[in-house]
Parts: sequence; structure tokens; C-alpha cells
Amino acid sequence: MAKPIAGPEIERLIQLLAKLPGLGPRSARRAALHLVKRREQLLSPLAAAMAEARDKVTICSVCGNIDTFDPCTVCTDHSRDQSTVIVVEDVADLWALERAKALNAAYHVLGGVLSPLEGVGPDDLTIRQLVERVHRGGIKELVLAVNATVEGQTTAHYLMDQLEGLDVKVTRLAHGVPVGGELDYLDEGTLAAAMRSRTGL
Amino acid sequence: MAKPIAGPEIERLIQLLAKLPGLGPRSARRAALHLVKRREQLLSPLAAAMAEARDKVTICSVCGNIDTFDPCTVCTDHSRDQSTVIVVEDVADLWALERAKALNAAYHVLGGVLSPLEGVGPDDLTIRQLVERVHRGGIKELVLAVNATVEGQTTAHYLMDQLEGLDVKVTRLAHGVPVGGELDYLDEGTLAAAMRSRTGL
Repeated sequence: MAKPIAGPEIERLIQLLAKLPGLGPRSARRAALHLVKRREQLLSPLAAAMAEARDKVTICSVCGNIDTFDPCTVCTDHSRDQSTVIVVEDVADLWALERAKALNAAYHVLGGVLSPLEGVGPDDLTIRQLVERVHRGGIKELVLAVNATVEGQTTAHYLMDQLEGLDVKVTRLAHGVPVGGELDYLDEGTLAAAMRSRTGL
Repeated sequence: MAKPIAGPEIERLIQLLAKLPGLGPRSARRAALHLVKRREQLLSPLAAAMAEARDKVTICSVCGNIDTFDPCTVCTDHSRDQSTVIVVEDVADLWALERAKALNAAYHVLGGVLSPLEGVGPDDLTIRQLVERVHRGGIKELVLAVNATVEGQTTAHYLMDQLEGLDVKVTRLAHGVPVGGELDYLDEGTLAAAMRSRTGL
């Protein structure tokens, strides 16, 4: 802006909000205005929630999940089948699988995928921790729930190599037609995979 | 979510973020994850900026602007023509006019528009404060920069009534073709107004 029209505090709040995914400069201004107009109902509780998250949130040393406990809520939940571990790229994938109530099991968050182009190697992910976790025993099945992208599949293959010789069953998510999906709009790879994995009625 | 997968602090952060305009439940989860992954670079500064805004931001008692000072930065800026007051509905409109460098003048924020349907009457806006401000003297021109909506125009007419007999020139923003706009896509009201206000070349 050409001239200052408000104290630097508001400008700084807008700049920081604009760094959130899904908010650009214009929507960050709208959000800042929304916040300062609702000081008691929203700004104050959100400031407190952020301060609390800053002080308490940590990364689970067992599975890489984000939580306020270490080991995390999922790792210490004995109503889950802790002998089955779902391997995901990111905490967002863990959340998505939990929303879908996909499987009542434990998780392992890799923290990304192998990507030579972006300089992400095995040591940048929690692959070593996963292999050690399997070594410690008690895990019967690993479900590789990585994305069906080139990087995701490369990471899955690398993981398979690292796990070779270990007494653990490794599975992956099924490929197929999305529920509610129209065949006409699906890519050929998905259709071919769905056909190969066709099931009896 | 079916089962707790993280401490209540993270869930609460997501719920509060989802109340920001432009963020829904899914993007609030993405934003929360983005924040807790960037504790030092983003979460911590944003928590501090919000706490500072909560403690310092106030509404200017002269013009209704939002700022950390009262009277606000705009009202105390003597490089502005303080005898010309631009009347806007909302602080967002003030910011928009400042970005456009529309006029180097003072402002008055009404805090909304008259809307019998939504139960917004004159006492819910800062109309009385505006009339008193004109009464105190020193104001030569009021530019009504309210939205070109039915409610905006109703508010403008009500304001004109209240200002009757006072020694102040009242103007409004020109109607016309938006810069870069294509005639073919404009509504008839705008085209007719642009034709009526045609200017010499």
C-alpha cells in the first residue's frame, strides 16, 4: 500500500496469514479483518490455540504422527491392531484414512516420498525408523498406502527392498474405479488396473 | 472423526481456523498441518501477531477504521486532505480505495448498510457520528463511496436526508464502464449510466 493506513501489527498479521495454504494476499486481508472484528469470539481463542499448539505439539518418535503426546494417541491406542501398520507419506494421509475409517490399525508417517529431482533421499524420510520398527518385532503386516504417483511407487519399491528378508507381510491399497466414479472419465491405467483386479459378484 | 487420533489441541486449532473466511473444514486441516510443521517460521510468529492484534487493535472513535491507534493513522495523517471525507461501508472498502490510491483524503466507516430485512437500522451504523463530525466543522466534501447495491443506495439516500441543511458538498463515485471491461458483457444499467455521463475527448 502506498501510505500506512493502519499500525504495522495489522499489516504483519495479514502477511503471516497470507502464508497459509489456501489464503492469498486478498483473502488474508479479509481473514485479518474478520479476526479483528471478532476479537472475543475468534481472534482471542485462535491466538490461544496457536500458542498452545506451538508449546505442546510434537512429532511422535515411534510413527512420525503429529500430536501433543509422544508416543502419540494412535500408537498408544490399544483398541487398534498395533500389529498392522499403515505406511503413509504425510500426516494428512493418516487423517484422510481415519476419516474414511479405512482400517483400525497403527500408522507410520514417512514424511514425504523419494524424489531425486527435489533432492529428497532415503535419509530425509523415516524409512530407517520403519525398518527398525519391524526389526523390533510385533508387526505382522505393512500396508503401503502411498500415493499412486511415480514418486509414491518409487518409494514403495525402495521400501520393499529395505524390508527384504524380514518376516512381515507387505500389502498395498487396491487400484480400481473410485466409488461413484464414471468409467468414461477415468484414465486408461485405472481402468486396466480395475479390470485386472475384477472380483466375483 | 471416529476415534481420537491427536490431542484435543490440534482438533481445536482446526475448528477455529475453519471459521476464517475462505477456509473450509478440509483447508483448515491443511492449514493446521502447515502450521504445526512450521513451528518456528510460521506458527510461533502468527500466534504472537494474533496476541498482539488482540491486545492492541481498536476501532477509531473518529472514523470507525480499525487500527492500533485511536484516533487512527488515517485520521492523524496531516498529509491527507482532512476536509474531504470518503464514506465507506466497511474497512475492507477503505483498504481497497487506498490500494487504488483513489484520493488522498480522510474516511468514515459506516460499519454496514441499512437493511430492514436483516434488522440493520441507522443506530447500528455510525451515521450519527458522521453527522456530528460534519457539525463540528472543517469538512468541505463527503464522497459517498457505498456499494452500488440497493442497500448501499438506500443508505446513501438516508444519509443525504440527515445531512440536509448542513454546509457540506456531497458527491458519489461515478458510474460507468469498468477499466478494461467489454461492453458486450456489461449490464444495461451500467451501460445506460456510462452513456448518460459520457465525457468529451
